[in-house]
Amino acid sequence: MQPNTKPARLPLNGVDTPNLMATINFVAGQPELAKFQFRAHNEWIEGTHSKTVMNGFFGAGNEQKHEKPHYADADHPAILCGADNAPTPVEWLLHGLAGCLMAGVANIAAARGIKLTRVKCSVDGDIDLRGILGISDEVRNGFQNIHVSFEIEGDAPAEKLQQLVEQSRARSAVFDVLTKGVPVTVGIKTIQ
Amino acid sequence: MQPNTKPARLPLNGVDTPNLMATINFVAGQPELAKFQFRAHNEWIEGTHSKTVMNGFFGAGNEQKHEKPHYADADHPAILCGADNAPTPVEWLLHGLAGCLMAGVANIAAARGIKLTRVKCSVDGDIDLRGILGISDEVRNGFQNIHVSFEIEGDAPAEKLQQLVEQSRARSAVFDVLTKGVPVTVGIKTIQ
Repeated sequence: MQPNTKPARLPLNGVDTPNLMATINFVAGQPELAKFQFRAHNEWIEGTHSKTVMNGFFGAGNEQKHEKPHYADADHPAILCGADNAPTPVEWLLHGLAGCLMAGVANIAAARGIKLTRVKCSVDGDIDLRGILGISDEVRNGFQNIHVSFEIEGDAPAEKLQQLVEQSRARSAVFDVLTKGVPVTVGIKTIQ
Repeated sequence: MQPNTKPARLPLNGVDTPNLMATINFVAGQPELAKFQFRAHNEWIEGTHSKTVMNGFFGAGNEQKHEKPHYADADHPAILCGADNAPTPVEWLLHGLAGCLMAGVANIAAARGIKLTRVKCSVDGDIDLRGILGISDEVRNGFQNIHVSFEIEGDAPAEKLQQLVEQSRARSAVFDVLTKGVPVTVGIKTIQ
């Protein structure tokens, strides 16, 4: 029998690689631990301005909490008659996509023993507001396309660095949702 | 000829309704003003932690800027080997959806002359992490479903309040992107 000669990876890029690998192996053996539910609780403030708290979530078989509640606002810019207290809701999607691809790049680089020195990405989304403004039924409400531009620097050949981004995209939760869509249901309770 | 007897709407719910209506009418007459591009610029910090700035965008025929740059982080929670500095990327999608539906509710209520007193929503997304952890190719990477629960209170009958949420959903940019998907392209520049 061939012994497993694959070297154990050390922590790298701020990723606790041994812990990450142990987590993946642990979940592989107990698939019910992989069922997570994430949640956002939002309250309207005024105009197009609202505030979200993200705190509790379910995962690894139990209710979990973030180390502290995370808060974020959303608003429309002045040019769209908002007060610009916060990014627009559609910008939050771009931020989510950037954050997801970036986390994946760091984890995958650590797993492959590649030290990253600098990684940046810009995410642009084109949208024709005739949709949401109700001016045209032929124009979709959402983005018509999104483009991500990565700049990645590290101690590996260009091809290996490029593969980090490609693998991150292939395993990105946000990339999957944005490109393929997900069923969304809406329930409404009215109070007069 | 029948005169237009529709009453002009006053500002309501913190929405500058006359300005919003004037904007819609103006854009209806000059559709090229409706072409917007939103942008997020993200930089990797450490591990799964990254930071985004959202500042410039294009719209109404010109380069625009938010009143100030908006910053936001993303990270993974400790249970997923992150440092929990910020919400997860997938929670940011839920926040974007909440913020978009909420802004729509407020704008539509103002346009219909309905005074809102309180509006809340909770957004939950179920995800099986065997996808992103690479444990199973049969499990998708992203959310399997998302549910939004609204509580809406205002000076209108239940049916009218319910219709506000329904119309907001029908015109939501984020709801459209999340349910129908959007093409996403990725470019990579490597630096060694």
